[in-house]
Amino acid sequence: MEHDTFNKTELTLLGLGDMGTALARAWLAAGHPLTVWNRTASRAEPLAAEGAKIAGTAADAVAAGELVVVCLLDDASVGEALAGVDLTGKDLVNLTTGTPAQARARAEWAEERGARFLDGGIMAVPPMIGAPESGGYVFYSGSRALFDAHHGALAVPAGTMYVGEDPGFAALHDVALLSAMTGMFAGISHAFALIRKEDIAPAGLAPLLVNWLTAMAPYAYGTAGHLESGDYTKGVVSNLAMMVEGNSTLLRTAEEQGVSAELLTPFTALMERRLADGHGDEGTTGVIDLLVR
Amino acid sequence: MEHDTFNKTELTLLGLGDMGTALARAWLAAGHPLTVWNRTASRAEPLAAEGAKIAGTAADAVAAGELVVVCLLDDASVGEALAGVDLTGKDLVNLTTGTPAQARARAEWAEERGARFLDGGIMAVPPMIGAPESGGYVFYSGSRALFDAHHGALAVPAGTMYVGEDPGFAALHDVALLSAMTGMFAGISHAFALIRKEDIAPAGLAPLLVNWLTAMAPYAYGTAGHLESGDYTKGVVSNLAMMVEGNSTLLRTAEEQGVSAELLTPFTALMERRLADGHGDEGTTGVIDLLVR
Repeated sequence: MEHDTFNKTELTLLGLGDMGTALARAWLAAGHPLTVWNRTASRAEPLAAEGAKIAGTAADAVAAGELVVVCLLDDASVGEALAGVDLTGKDLVNLTTGTPAQARARAEWAEERGARFLDGGIMAVPPMIGAPESGGYVFYSGSRALFDAHHGALAVPAGTMYVGEDPGFAALHDVALLSAMTGMFAGISHAFALIRKEDIAPAGLAPLLVNWLTAMAPYAYGTAGHLESGDYTKGVVSNLAMMVEGNSTLLRTAEEQGVSAELLTPFTALMERRLADGHGDEGTTGVIDLLVR
Repeated sequence: MEHDTFNKTELTLLGLGDMGTALARAWLAAGHPLTVWNRTASRAEPLAAEGAKIAGTAADAVAAGELVVVCLLDDASVGEALAGVDLTGKDLVNLTTGTPAQARARAEWAEERGARFLDGGIMAVPPMIGAPESGGYVFYSGSRALFDAHHGALAVPAGTMYVGEDPGFAALHDVALLSAMTGMFAGISHAFALIRKEDIAPAGLAPLLVNWLTAMAPYAYGTAGHLESGDYTKGVVSNLAMMVEGNSTLLRTAEEQGVSAELLTPFTALMERRLADGHGDEGTTGVIDLLVR
């Protein structure tokens, strides 16, 4: 397959873990000139056969590209790889997993070195990269000018969603979604634990769980409405008093089934606290205020 | 509006809380002859105007119906309402919220009194009753013969799903789905807490959360496959070692944002325990085994 590389952005990619390698392949497949560097050089070799230029040092790699994408193990690795490297005039996109504070500090660090900075939070696993139908996408925040200038290249591996000039917002959105998913996985785990010793097929429960969770996920719209209006009772059908009553059935069932309720009790305890504070006519939104210090 | 009540099942309903009242209205609207009873009689009056017969005692109500539906506050209320009432030859459907063990004990109790017994777990709130497009449905378990004999009447208020002869299975399915939802709501609450002090609109985060959770809910299919095969590594893309690494970013972000991580830590701790037990190549399925005593 031949590619038209005319007018395609000169890309540099630092970091060839599973995600970095998937990104590299997506850009190569789209015909972008690509220079790669990885601390362990052997990870780069297969990509050379696919058209990537291999740099011997991170500094050489950065010098070769107009748009420098970093996808390393963690924020400390970014600092190490780029220590002493000239970033003047570069556009630096950091796809390394990190916290909002790390992204904000890295943005300041990059700007001090004369680079524009964009942070990214990847909402995809490597097999979803370069496969638009997978629905994977990347949150971006930081320099809007950088995002606009390189949108074509950035959109190659996955969808893009720009969420603000604050360079911490991409990581914050990423972590918010992963945290919500963690809660959902905890709930799914508890559900399967309840039937573990029963003559109920997990494969029969799974579609019921998926349909129910999909039907109930839009509860988040109501929560958002409560937070924006400050009225936590609006549109509430099952109120906190009713839900706390229902929780006692959930906890008693766990006990009956010999299942530890440790994944449910922190949330039910917060609901009880909010109810005790006199908010029985609300939904669960008040729990959020109990979480924030 | 006139209804053809010819050949429609003679129904009795005990309990006119919000759910019972919604059930009554759905059956009346469908033309079923209906006798109702409620401990607080005033709740029944509006239904009389809609065609319901009001019974002065639970015993009179039960005597009037072929199919007796009970939707009371809790299992103890069922025992109290039906104490000393002749159930011989009756078909008793218990839609009162309870645990699987309560349903099993109530089934035995009903059979000893000469009744067939079916337990139900309602996956709907009152406004969804009698509105097929709402997607609400009721899990049923216990006497298949009763379910088949009265399916027409049972299907009037909401969809039906028969899940087994074990009378505890309806409640168990109900509680499993509500438990999973509780976990998801906990995750959603944590996500909103993370942005509470930031210049990010909750109404902007909500659709991202809904789409992400909807996309990730099918994780339950993989979990079911693991439980059925006993191979917890099958099809795993993000393995436990990678997820535990990612959890540190979630927990550190919570700390940065001033948000208590109490809703996440029980699950992350179980993931760490499973990882420490040498299962880093699995997904999260092994956590389920840690929950079951």
